[in-house]
Amino acid sequence: MPETSDPAAKLNSALSRRFGEAVEIDGRIDGLAVLADMAARGSCRAFRDEPVDQGLIRLLAATALSSPAKSDLQQRDIIAIEDAGLRERIDALSGGGWLEGAPAFLVFCGNNRRQRQLHEWRGHPFANDHLDAFFNAAVDAAIALSAFVTAAEAVGLGCCPVSQIRNHPDKVSSLLGLPDHVFPVAGVAFGWPEEAPPVAPRLPLKVTLHTDRFNEADLREQVEMYDMRREALMPYGKQRAIDRFGEARRYGWSEDKARQYAEEQRTDFGAFVRKKSFLLD
Amino acid sequence: MPETSDPAAKLNSALSRRFGEAVEIDGRIDGLAVLADMAARGSCRAFRDEPVDQGLIRLLAATALSSPAKSDLQQRDIIAIEDAGLRERIDALSGGGWLEGAPAFLVFCGNNRRQRQLHEWRGHPFANDHLDAFFNAAVDAAIALSAFVTAAEAVGLGCCPVSQIRNHPDKVSSLLGLPDHVFPVAGVAFGWPEEAPPVAPRLPLKVTLHTDRFNEADLREQVEMYDMRREALMPYGKQRAIDRFGEARRYGWSEDKARQYAEEQRTDFGAFVRKKSFLLD
Repeated sequence: MPETSDPAAKLNSALSRRFGEAVEIDGRIDGLAVLADMAARGSCRAFRDEPVDQGLIRLLAATALSSPAKSDLQQRDIIAIEDAGLRERIDALSGGGWLEGAPAFLVFCGNNRRQRQLHEWRGHPFANDHLDAFFNAAVDAAIALSAFVTAAEAVGLGCCPVSQIRNHPDKVSSLLGLPDHVFPVAGVAFGWPEEAPPVAPRLPLKVTLHTDRFNEADLREQVEMYDMRREALMPYGKQRAIDRFGEARRYGWSEDKARQYAEEQRTDFGAFVRKKSFLLD
Repeated sequence: MPETSDPAAKLNSALSRRFGEAVEIDGRIDGLAVLADMAARGSCRAFRDEPVDQGLIRLLAATALSSPAKSDLQQRDIIAIEDAGLRERIDALSGGGWLEGAPAFLVFCGNNRRQRQLHEWRGHPFANDHLDAFFNAAVDAAIALSAFVTAAEAVGLGCCPVSQIRNHPDKVSSLLGLPDHVFPVAGVAFGWPEEAPPVAPRLPLKVTLHTDRFNEADLREQVEMYDMRREALMPYGKQRAIDRFGEARRYGWSEDKARQYAEEQRTDFGAFVRKKSFLLD
């Protein structure tokens, strides 16, 4: 995508590639440059060999923690990983390579522990030890993570969310000293990008944006068209699990994702969350 | 907070109020205006009587759906509520009043159904019917919700996330026609704000931003100081559950939150999610 200083043009170009259709843009509205950066984002895996200033990381974390939180309960924490050895151990537990070359790394955690502590301190019973307690903390952490990515990319950093830190949640949790009712949601590796990451095509809005009622008419056809669009714009470098499934002649998003989740992934996550003393009733 | 056109000053003012401490800002970095808007945000409940253009809503939804998604699985959908009767029914099920006066309303849903459909269509077994399936979809929806709020506020809209749509998840789900493995995470009510909402003070960064290891030294003292700071800057208009707990002389955040969750809330959410055919093992 050519760089342009016209935000409406940049936004139009990003969304057309992203969704395979033009999205109406009223060029008179404020803030189009922000939308253009958000729409043109991509996960960054190649960083310049240059540190990210600690003060900037703190500023971005504070901005992220200004994002909405369910009922103002603020059930999320950020852990900045500065120790190089710790970072290596987390990387190894995440399958290796996700943090390689990224100058900075944060872990976003859900925290329902603080809420329970408030009840102890204020002498009021905690009446909500069920799925919602876990769910709200996870959602709060995800909201902050998303805001962090937007803020970091707004100052020119590149980001890569790393959910693989949950591959061995128990071990990562021990390394970070997470107590009961605190759990990792995802990490974000970031730094100054070597180059702007590509805009990954997404499912068409016809599939993901509904009016009044959920509608999956034509879903299969839409996914097939998306597979083809994606193959043309951003083909997969290699096929997964060829040993098991053979080499596919056409290899689109749906084939890649169905192969990915045909393998067991994080089957121990529920046991970990329960070990963190969450009831998930 | 006085309006200012200097983004560093606006950012500094917002973060000082938010966290009760100065956060270092290097005035030379790009993007400070974006950070300032994000840091100075607040939930908006008073809107001008003016519609939000459908094209703008679509543009903002497309921008939100450009945000990161776990493993590119895109396990989230947005439902735009346009029908006035439907909207009233959702509002009534949410306790009433959350959507009142807000010209526009979206519901953000987690969707793990599409992933399972891919497996059927591609003929590969789905090997991950456990907690992670629900968790990843919830997180994907929350990431998109957060990006939507940032994008909408960047163009000048005011937003109020509405998690209360899960007060009666089963009924809301029926109204929206959500099939198995699709569930509401939260709504966002939005419109053109009457005035800039206040910046709500948040827990100090000492509590929510950690280095290398989770650290809750001094947590209780920090929360007590926060309670006082909050009472000074943004006192609660009324105390909760005076019938049950009496009238408190000091009424800070910790007292409000401990009273709030001393009442059962959404105890049926787990049963709803299981009825949507999720195993949460």
